[in-house]
Amino acid sequence: MNKNEKIFLSNIAETLRIHSIRMTTAAGSGHPTSCLSAAEIMSVLFFRQMKYDPRRLDSPDNDGFILSKGHAAPILYAAYAEAGAIPVSELDGLRTFGSVLEGHPVPGLNGIRAATGSLGQGLSIAAGMAFAVKQDGGNQRVYTVLGDGEMAEGNVWEAMNFVSHYGLDNMTAVLDMNRLGQSEATMFEWNSKEYADRARAFGWETFDVDGHSIEELAYGFERAAASGKPALVIAKTVKGKNGGEAENADGYHGKAFSKEEAEGLIEKLRSRIEPVDFVPQNHISAKRDKPEPRNVSIETSYTKEEMVPTRTAFGKALAKIGGQDPDMIVLDGDVKGSSRTKYFFQEYPDRGRETYIAEQNMAGMLIGLQAYGKRAAAASFAAFLTRAHDQFRMGAYSRARFLIAGSHTGVSIGQDGPSQMGLEDIAMMRSIFGSLVLSPSDAVSAEKLTALGLNYKGIAYIRTIRGETPVIYDNSEEFTAGGSRVLKSSANDHATFVATGYTVSEALKAAERLEKEKNISVRVIDCYSLKPMDSETLRKAAEETKIIITVEDHYPEGGLGEAVASQVSGYGKVFSLSVTRMPHSGSPEKLIREQGIDAESILRKFHELLGDI
Amino acid sequence: MNKNEKIFLSNIAETLRIHSIRMTTAAGSGHPTSCLSAAEIMSVLFFRQMKYDPRRLDSPDNDGFILSKGHAAPILYAAYAEAGAIPVSELDGLRTFGSVLEGHPVPGLNGIRAATGSLGQGLSIAAGMAFAVKQDGGNQRVYTVLGDGEMAEGNVWEAMNFVSHYGLDNMTAVLDMNRLGQSEATMFEWNSKEYADRARAFGWETFDVDGHSIEELAYGFERAAASGKPALVIAKTVKGKNGGEAENADGYHGKAFSKEEAEGLIEKLRSRIEPVDFVPQNHISAKRDKPEPRNVSIETSYTKEEMVPTRTAFGKALAKIGGQDPDMIVLDGDVKGSSRTKYFFQEYPDRGRETYIAEQNMAGMLIGLQAYGKRAAAASFAAFLTRAHDQFRMGAYSRARFLIAGSHTGVSIGQDGPSQMGLEDIAMMRSIFGSLVLSPSDAVSAEKLTALGLNYKGIAYIRTIRGETPVIYDNSEEFTAGGSRVLKSSANDHATFVATGYTVSEALKAAERLEKEKNISVRVIDCYSLKPMDSETLRKAAEETKIIITVEDHYPEGGLGEAVASQVSGYGKVFSLSVTRMPHSGSPEKLIREQGIDAESILRKFHELLGDI
Repeated sequence: MNKNEKIFLSNIAETLRIHSIRMTTAAGSGHPTSCLSAAEIMSVLFFRQMKYDPRRLDSPDNDGFILSKGHAAPILYAAYAEAGAIPVSELDGLRTFGSVLEGHPVPGLNGIRAATGSLGQGLSIAAGMAFAVKQDGGNQRVYTVLGDGEMAEGNVWEAMNFVSHYGLDNMTAVLDMNRLGQSEATMFEWNSKEYADRARAFGWETFDVDGHSIEELAYGFERAAASGKPALVIAKTVKGKNGGEAENADGYHGKAFSKEEAEGLIEKLRSRIEPVDFVPQNHISAKRDKPEPRNVSIETSYTKEEMVPTRTAFGKALAKIGGQDPDMIVLDGDVKGSSRTKYFFQEYPDRGRETYIAEQNMAGMLIGLQAYGKRAAAASFAAFLTRAHDQFRMGAYSRARFLIAGSHTGVSIGQDGPSQMGLEDIAMMRSIFGSLVLSPSDAVSAEKLTALGLNYKGIAYIRTIRGETPVIYDNSEEFTAGGSRVLKSSANDHATFVATGYTVSEALKAAERLEKEKNISVRVIDCYSLKPMDSETLRKAAEETKIIITVEDHYPEGGLGEAVASQVSGYGKVFSLSVTRMPHSGSPEKLIREQGIDAESILRKFHELLGDI
Repeated sequence: MNKNEKIFLSNIAETLRIHSIRMTTAAGSGHPTSCLSAAEIMSVLFFRQMKYDPRRLDSPDNDGFILSKGHAAPILYAAYAEAGAIPVSELDGLRTFGSVLEGHPVPGLNGIRAATGSLGQGLSIAAGMAFAVKQDGGNQRVYTVLGDGEMAEGNVWEAMNFVSHYGLDNMTAVLDMNRLGQSEATMFEWNSKEYADRARAFGWETFDVDGHSIEELAYGFERAAASGKPALVIAKTVKGKNGGEAENADGYHGKAFSKEEAEGLIEKLRSRIEPVDFVPQNHISAKRDKPEPRNVSIETSYTKEEMVPTRTAFGKALAKIGGQDPDMIVLDGDVKGSSRTKYFFQEYPDRGRETYIAEQNMAGMLIGLQAYGKRAAAASFAAFLTRAHDQFRMGAYSRARFLIAGSHTGVSIGQDGPSQMGLEDIAMMRSIFGSLVLSPSDAVSAEKLTALGLNYKGIAYIRTIRGETPVIYDNSEEFTAGGSRVLKSSANDHATFVATGYTVSEALKAAERLEKEKNISVRVIDCYSLKPMDSETLRKAAEETKIIITVEDHYPEGGLGEAVASQVSGYGKVFSLSVTRMPHSGSPEKLIREQGIDAESILRKFHELLGDI
């Protein structure tokens, strides 16, 4: 490296420090000391190592970058400002209402492809991006900056395994080993061997560098890129570097400097900057826009009354749709025989990827895949998707689009018992910001809702069933986000049964028996879209029939019953049948009977409320 | 080992195989091949290595055992039957309605201290048990049997780190490396070096053994126990061992043998058993019952209107209560300054344990700690508790009791932005079976609800707030599970404001302004117990005031509004104010205004519904 470049990069590092201190002090909050340790790392990455176009940060032609230690957001914003991607004046908005420069990174600023700030997720997002690059035959590299505290997160090691197992040699992770966590020193402080041994055991190459030496960083990044393996550059740094008393000191995490402190520090930092003539050589001219997945469609050919598990229909739909979009990738958490993603894997072995029993990495990768323009989907048992709740939450803040399928929902799975039963998935996925939550009851709706979910510009969830349910829909039926289907109605309905998924056929059975045996009509609604929900149809039913009985194979909290009660409040009275007893093993029939969500129980509830009429 | 013992243990292994095959074939489902690989492991553990009392399986004097690969449940039940802990005839109940021998292990059968079956959690549970033993100065060992597929779960590596970092040398983990996962071969198949390198890098000792050799297993377990480190015994096994065509074959996971197949296999297995005279020497006479935490109490001394963050009151309460119970342990995910568990850590450094940024392991350890009789609590940001959703879910099936605190809830945290905001925690924790969900609005209720949570015989959750809220309760006030507090009411209330946590003081402000400025009375209810919920008081309010406006700093799905709407359905009309726009950074005041959950917004909603009256 020539002298001028070294001075230039050192100047940039100090300038990033100045911005970071000024921004956080102006905001009155933030994590300046977590920025100060990373100044040389960011300088060398953004002004020497990474190939990217500062005028076109969202292009997939750029090398990828994920700031996994999201609390160092100010220094990332500062780097983009110094690269000319955003005006320096915008930096003053940090953390204020309406600014895209939020406390932790979120898309809004081009170049920020995913939200970070919940630690330990960045490497999985980067793995998704690196995998997308490989699929496209590109040679972009994907960079991640990690904090040392977050190395305790299991998600990091799930990603480490995936990346080395599939040979994603286009990844460089940089560990900002600044010794101090939030509340005390990290587990391994400055013992870089602890990190190196772990990463090497997980199949990565590692490089130890002084994280405040421009030359060591530059050389380390070069060797990492040339190593032919995924590489971890372990940069020994000082938290609060050049931050006066905050240097390497406890008690400064997440605290802005006072105005006076900031002024003093900034003056000193300015004095370290010496004029130099140098133009960085790493900026490129990006060509491509990020591709947007186009809408896919599906046609079905089932026979009424045919018995088909919705998980099977989902899997077949994936395989059908796979042919329409060469950019569609499906991940699976070692349950592809059960989730039925196996049909896609069989058809498109190069686009189905086994992520093994590591749901957090699977979910994080979805964010990365779609950030590079892929249509992404993943499946596991609904119960095990709870493992990735945080990643889905962060996916929403990442403005990500992908489809998740949860199979084996409800006590209706039977003998395997509660550990395998998805009984909180509706609550979990409804609580994800902007999500679409779908719950098909038969094969026709399952296939069509799979297509709907794959077209949704946000996080879509489809809830499938292990056992067989009868086909109830014509192949011509259409399904919409926020829709429902009135399966049975008359001008003289005495109540409405609202069901979803498995319980739809039970509700229909109950209504048909009432009709046949007692000549009592009841309305039946298949509430296949749990979020958004068809409040118009539900309110009309509540007004006209006064009484609604909801029935779901899910816990009451956050499920169908509560959602409907909230939608129709003031229009009619809602009684909820759901899973309220400790679930356990047994035959599906006995279990749905015990929980009171079968046809018999619906009838019992109806008579309890309305007598014999 | 003498010849008789070897024959005896080999006989036991084949007998366990026979039971496993017979039980699963009778049930028509289950995972026989996953049992067959573990037969020698289980034989040597249960009839040679582990010190335990088969007549008193729940005593903490026993060595601990966790079957992390919970799908091998039948062989565990078989081992207990052969040890005389349960009648062999009970085995026939496997997976049937009403039997304690569920598809995956759950407590109900003594000796099963935690539910397993969601993979990768067992090591954390065992770590909690091993830590409890160390705290008591005991010398019991804790054993875990892991599957190779679950080694991909990040949770395993979180536990590995914790165990070695804190020197829990009383742990032996056994890896049943049978090569095959559910849907295909595992990442590393029989390459034991991959596992050994990883475990050693994480600070564990490892021992490679032939998992079907009684002698190698026995010697390996002995060396593991004597190694002075946490030890992983890597047992190379064959999935479906002695299971005919199912041996080492794909496509046999989770499938019971047909009756004919089973009979043939059992006959062959029987022929391998030779009569021998031997009495195992590892069974002990346990003395102690599992201790049950006694109720604790608390007194507060706040001044009305004093401004205190509820997280601070929570932390102070922990520290006060810590003195009443020497068996109380508090864990923290490297946020103890923020969650305020630091007060407990300062007071009782030997009973506060930093679990670092690894929420899954933290949650799993709670299950293990309480299984050995400890009163256990843990804290993190509510947002990051989503990381441990699956562990909480499994905690409920473990019939565990512990307290979780989630701080930094709602948009009211302000500048840090959505990644740090707990906005789905009410939905998540309400959906945990049998949970108690508490949401204090002031310091008095926060302290008293902390005590309530610590006394609860299940999973209790307390939701705390980052910012200050005014003290509104007398120090003499009492709070109950399922209670609420009517803060303001009259015979002539025009509506009811139902709030929880942060929004209680906003609701009070709104009501007081209505009273003062317009002489309109409105009822105000602090719904501090979100599960169970005070439906009586809420229904009365709905009937009397017709209109309820709920207000919460949480997403609508699964939150206060839906829960109240469901409780009062048919009694009155519920309008919900909650977080419905994409959350972002900004000042708390601006954010709660934008989301429409401040006093102004409550007033606006009131006038929109009722005009000026």
